[in-house]
Amino acid sequence: MTKEDQLIARIEARLAKLRGRRALGGRSGARRRSSSLALGPGDDACVLRAAPDREWVVSCDAFLENVHFIRRLHAPETIGYKALARATSDLAAVGAAPRCFLLGLTLPSNLTGNWLDGLLDGLALAARKFGMELAGGDTSRTEGIAINLTVFGDVRSGTAVLRSGARPGDRIFVTGQLGAAQLGLEILLRGSSRRPGSRRYLAPHIKPDPPIALGQWLARHRLATAMMDLSDGLSTDLDRLCRASGVGARIQEARLPAARVPESLRRKGIDALKLARDGGEDYQLLFTVPERAAHRIPRRRDGVRITEIGEITRGRGVTIDSAAGASSPLTPRGWDPFARLRT
Amino acid sequence: MTKEDQLIARIEARLAKLRGRRALGGRSGARRRSSSLALGPGDDACVLRAAPDREWVVSCDAFLENVHFIRRLHAPETIGYKALARATSDLAAVGAAPRCFLLGLTLPSNLTGNWLDGLLDGLALAARKFGMELAGGDTSRTEGIAINLTVFGDVRSGTAVLRSGARPGDRIFVTGQLGAAQLGLEILLRGSSRRPGSRRYLAPHIKPDPPIALGQWLARHRLATAMMDLSDGLSTDLDRLCRASGVGARIQEARLPAARVPESLRRKGIDALKLARDGGEDYQLLFTVPERAAHRIPRRRDGVRITEIGEITRGRGVTIDSAAGASSPLTPRGWDPFARLRT
Repeated sequence: MTKEDQLIARIEARLAKLRGRRALGGRSGARRRSSSLALGPGDDACVLRAAPDREWVVSCDAFLENVHFIRRLHAPETIGYKALARATSDLAAVGAAPRCFLLGLTLPSNLTGNWLDGLLDGLALAARKFGMELAGGDTSRTEGIAINLTVFGDVRSGTAVLRSGARPGDRIFVTGQLGAAQLGLEILLRGSSRRPGSRRYLAPHIKPDPPIALGQWLARHRLATAMMDLSDGLSTDLDRLCRASGVGARIQEARLPAARVPESLRRKGIDALKLARDGGEDYQLLFTVPERAAHRIPRRRDGVRITEIGEITRGRGVTIDSAAGASSPLTPRGWDPFARLRT
Repeated sequence: MTKEDQLIARIEARLAKLRGRRALGGRSGARRRSSSLALGPGDDACVLRAAPDREWVVSCDAFLENVHFIRRLHAPETIGYKALARATSDLAAVGAAPRCFLLGLTLPSNLTGNWLDGLLDGLALAARKFGMELAGGDTSRTEGIAINLTVFGDVRSGTAVLRSGARPGDRIFVTGQLGAAQLGLEILLRGSSRRPGSRRYLAPHIKPDPPIALGQWLARHRLATAMMDLSDGLSTDLDRLCRASGVGARIQEARLPAARVPESLRRKGIDALKLARDGGEDYQLLFTVPERAAHRIPRRRDGVRITEIGEITRGRGVTIDSAAGASSPLTPRGWDPFARLRT
């Protein structure tokens, strides 16, 4: 048995144990009857079986050292949890029910002990929470850490909610608080995370909680005409939704559910409105609903706050009305890994 | 539109153009009726629709700079082609028909021009050859290049061939030549790739050709009891197949279809038998067939050479009989990224 096989067996065993299931160990996947995963880890590929009248929804997401997390700032449990939460947010974004995931893991040799165990514990915590199981994966040795996840969910055939369905007059909604994750990151980066009371500000950054049940509810009842998750910031993501739908949007600054910034940080120039407009990684939902159905959207559902922030317009581009009534373009200024690139 | 969105649009457009199809451009995926891909790139997730009585087969594979390829030695077209060929080999390994793939691409900013175009041309070449289309993906900026592919194929329900089905008495077969890819790599690393006549030795290393049609034929006719691809070398992969099946194996050295090593390299100590036993990256198939059905396996099919090399035994472990008749254990000495790891 190669060292790689031993490592893979250890990963499978730990993830299975943390789920309270028997690990497959070194034996390749016995066919399963109960789950949508007809063949799990241990073979060259996994096999998915769609339930009748369901379609598979798939997304991939890379969570990378020094791009998305920093080894000395983020605990391995946090990294594992967040990797799967971020990826699963893309399933929530189309209204799918999460089912399973592939784990593509590359890491340095010296992290294959306790650090890896911590990572797997975090992954398992998220998997339990979202109702997912390991379907298979791939490992390699590298200098930096990369967690490449492919996540699988399912929807009733034809009910996945796309970015492209927004129509003029539709009302625009967001879930949760905007800018909360970015605020948590700012606190962590400034080293003020150990101050009393700062813990609750960190949670949205280190432990995002995508509103999966809400996404499914919106899809099931065909309430949302368009939907996506807020991963790169409202200004960037709303622009994407509008481009995909061939429409414009007009939102009200005063309505944005901006995360509250503590006084100490406000004095240092951190602005709640700027965070709400451009802050990334909230993993909340952005969706549109026809005007006639907007009354069916509650202000809170399953503990998730839902806020109407504006409406879809016939033109192009997104404008924002200030509290004073002035209207200006909302320029996309969210997260862009290639921002300094000439293309 | 962010720089990242522009980059993604460029990737989609180039891959679509190279397939001779209209790109989706910035608009998110219109639902498709003709293909198994109900929703393609451009949204938060893609949607797969299984044909009646078919199951989805999925695998992921990371192709990494300085682990699997070297930027100054391997042209971007080669890297793109090989990334998809390697990943698709896992679909051949269970007998699936390739359909589509997710492209997770991380690369430095200075490679997003011509180098990226070359990579995409190579990917498109492989996609055309294997009958695959882009389903979606993810990009990020990093220092090193990583190509993370998730590949999707389908099989008739219940016909995927696993590693675990080999039974004592089954005959063991391999396709192609063994060690040919490793030989090509040795020639490239020694800088002797520009010598006349060396080009044909490089092909198995830079342009692997997994026998996809053969894998499907074996699965469709239920001829193979167990199957996997040869990615890390026969000694390592046969050991994996035996462990998964709970059996042993006995193979004949004289029967191994070893790649021919040129005289100049033999003098430098490169041994054809060692390459055939332990050389990685051949992306050929290893499979077992019940004795009573072994006569149905031709020596060549669709241009792919097929060789019987031994049989499955009741015990544990793999033994190899030398040409002189001596029997010894075949220790796994193939590729192992974590070989120097204490676990």
